[in-house]
Amino acid sequence: MNIQEIIAKKRDKQELSKEEITYFVTNYTNGTISDYQAAALTMAIYINGMTEEETTNLTLEMAHSGDILDLSEFGIVVDKHSTGGIGDKVTLILAPIIASLGIPVAKMSGRGLGYTGGTIDKLEAIPGYQTNITIQEFRKNVGTIGISLMGQTLNLAPADKKLYALRGTIAATESIPLISSSIMSKKIAAGANKIVLDVTCGSGAFMKELSQATQLAETMKKIGKLAQKETVCIITSMEEPLGETVGNSLEVIEAVQALQGKMTEDVQEVVFTLGAYMMKLAGKGDNIEENKQEMLTQIQNGKAFEKLKELIQAQGGDISYIENLELLPKAKYVIPLLGAKCGYVKKLNAKGVGEVSMHLGAGRMKKEDSIDPAVGIVLKKKIGDKIEENEVLAYIYANREEDGKKAVKQLANCYEIVEERIEKKSGILRII
Amino acid sequence: MNIQEIIAKKRDKQELSKEEITYFVTNYTNGTISDYQAAALTMAIYINGMTEEETTNLTLEMAHSGDILDLSEFGIVVDKHSTGGIGDKVTLILAPIIASLGIPVAKMSGRGLGYTGGTIDKLEAIPGYQTNITIQEFRKNVGTIGISLMGQTLNLAPADKKLYALRGTIAATESIPLISSSIMSKKIAAGANKIVLDVTCGSGAFMKELSQATQLAETMKKIGKLAQKETVCIITSMEEPLGETVGNSLEVIEAVQALQGKMTEDVQEVVFTLGAYMMKLAGKGDNIEENKQEMLTQIQNGKAFEKLKELIQAQGGDISYIENLELLPKAKYVIPLLGAKCGYVKKLNAKGVGEVSMHLGAGRMKKEDSIDPAVGIVLKKKIGDKIEENEVLAYIYANREEDGKKAVKQLANCYEIVEERIEKKSGILRII
Repeated sequence: MNIQEIIAKKRDKQELSKEEITYFVTNYTNGTISDYQAAALTMAIYINGMTEEETTNLTLEMAHSGDILDLSEFGIVVDKHSTGGIGDKVTLILAPIIASLGIPVAKMSGRGLGYTGGTIDKLEAIPGYQTNITIQEFRKNVGTIGISLMGQTLNLAPADKKLYALRGTIAATESIPLISSSIMSKKIAAGANKIVLDVTCGSGAFMKELSQATQLAETMKKIGKLAQKETVCIITSMEEPLGETVGNSLEVIEAVQALQGKMTEDVQEVVFTLGAYMMKLAGKGDNIEENKQEMLTQIQNGKAFEKLKELIQAQGGDISYIENLELLPKAKYVIPLLGAKCGYVKKLNAKGVGEVSMHLGAGRMKKEDSIDPAVGIVLKKKIGDKIEENEVLAYIYANREEDGKKAVKQLANCYEIVEERIEKKSGILRII
Repeated sequence: MNIQEIIAKKRDKQELSKEEITYFVTNYTNGTISDYQAAALTMAIYINGMTEEETTNLTLEMAHSGDILDLSEFGIVVDKHSTGGIGDKVTLILAPIIASLGIPVAKMSGRGLGYTGGTIDKLEAIPGYQTNITIQEFRKNVGTIGISLMGQTLNLAPADKKLYALRGTIAATESIPLISSSIMSKKIAAGANKIVLDVTCGSGAFMKELSQATQLAETMKKIGKLAQKETVCIITSMEEPLGETVGNSLEVIEAVQALQGKMTEDVQEVVFTLGAYMMKLAGKGDNIEENKQEMLTQIQNGKAFEKLKELIQAQGGDISYIENLELLPKAKYVIPLLGAKCGYVKKLNAKGVGEVSMHLGAGRMKKEDSIDPAVGIVLKKKIGDKIEENEVLAYIYANREEDGKKAVKQLANCYEIVEERIEKKSGILRII
């Protein structure tokens, strides 16, 4: 077997065997296969596709290319993952609710690359919170309080890490077999038994069309089945940002308020739907509506918020910042964006809002960039909302006045206001 | 403009603009674009193809990526190139005939990589012959005796050199736009005004099928037209090796004997056809049959052989080796291959013969390998020939007895002998 033969097979639209995929992943990870050979194979996969069996084999090989976290001591662990969106603070709200129901939450998250930080970056907006704890501490926290959220310290799926970075440089990102195997390999390496995936769809997501998102979801569900990791995919809308805030501290505030009972409808719909399926997979009830009701109870009785505080305290965070949100880092300048005319919001370009957020300093363009936890955007008007003249559409939170002024103008371009009434739509597009 | 956008366009089957191709070639040559990005683009080109305009733009950009040899002082220079075959000694015979007709021959040749040496390696089998002369000497020889054959000392088409090497490692060799642009860029950089191409076809060639060879020929003809370098392609058969010998000294001997009037039919057909079209392009006569007759005359009157001796002398070679072929390096062991049964030769696998030749030491597997000029194969029986029992099919020329014995067995497998009579076929398949 050699890499040229493997490239030639995929180039000629043939199916790769398990042995060929193993050969590729092993030798690419150890450096025997060069980046240019991997690039040629990746482009051939992008153009000619992969069968479900090939995609599953690629997933499993990448999952086993490094450490595998064994969480079997905790019983059934249901992991949750999103394919990425703007204003996505779902994990911050969902994880404490789930843990408060007695379902173990043992989650390793990555840092964000792009418009805003990832969950780990958001947690670091809370002074003292340690994301790089040891695996022993992680296990201890899951064992004692039923929850831990940490950064990736293990060498999980290094083959995926290498291939993912390569794909970014050769225009091979948006490939369904490659995205699916990348996501699923990380989830499998991170020790999940069952997986609920939030597959985002719309202008602010990788998948722009519902047909693509459906195909991605179906592929991941099948990989899950073949890999014996039961998987449910919830396709959610990313036409506009999720919830009211975009930015790290701002999203922590929104998450805390959600756990205190003040949650926007769109966030609630996504959090409750994902959570209800996590409960179902964990064997805590097959009735989705009843599961949602139970989740609501955990918010109303304060147990979910209590769980968040336990988590923060266990990982060294200062809970006074959570009890008094005013203490969290705050941007120097808060600049309102006023509506230029009356009407209804027809569009609120999620990608555009993400770019504004990144320019303000809430996200990273390169791995090495640091992020500013205080900056971001608060969206007061979203799709379907009525606007009176000179009403505030949004607030820009900036630490430099210049940036803030620029951001206001950019954000204005993200809104499309029309005269006719616009209906709000459900954020849950499909469940697979 | 950036390389990701260019890769994405070709990945999505779009046509690249002239500017995009320039951007790629310039930045790949100077190292700004990495090998893995070039590999991804190359694979996308392999799979999705290129239009004639794209292929021509790639050709011209690669041609101009380094030095361009200016031969305008010699008037119309017709270059000849072969896409490669086994036992191809055509240049050694054709170049002196053409030069003896007063048509300038100013040819830079590469070394061989593969089954046997290239023209340069074959010339070096003649003691003293200098292939790495200066450009000044090269010009002087063309000016005074009308012919020079030298190695590539100039930095001709470095972009092609880089891309060609990359293609070999990523299974992207057999692509018509990539092969065409590679060949034509080198010819244009080497200063040709007009070009006659020997496009080989069959088991011993890159192009196995006539349809592929035709497509390659048509593509190169169109590039020639768009680049204003009139081009004629002769598709020749490479089902069996050309002529009687494979190996460096052995081919020099066959070439010398051909110029002395002893030429096998298949070599004569190829040499005369290519030469007749070179004469036509040089403006020396439109009638192909008359041109062939003139070439024959140059052999019969000794002028072609005289020109070969002038060339060898001018470049430091010892012509006594040519006047007395017995002096040329000779292998220690000459081992006959006997036919096992009577009948007719149905097949003589050209690729197989090439491999035997390489194992004997006549070719190089890697650039750094040295070649043994003395070893090789003399084929006494070829397709269509009748064989009596225990008649000699071929002789192996080896410098190690072990290699020779192994080679005899391997060579036996290249022959297919059948009972029914087999017709000899013309070696000229198509003229484009």
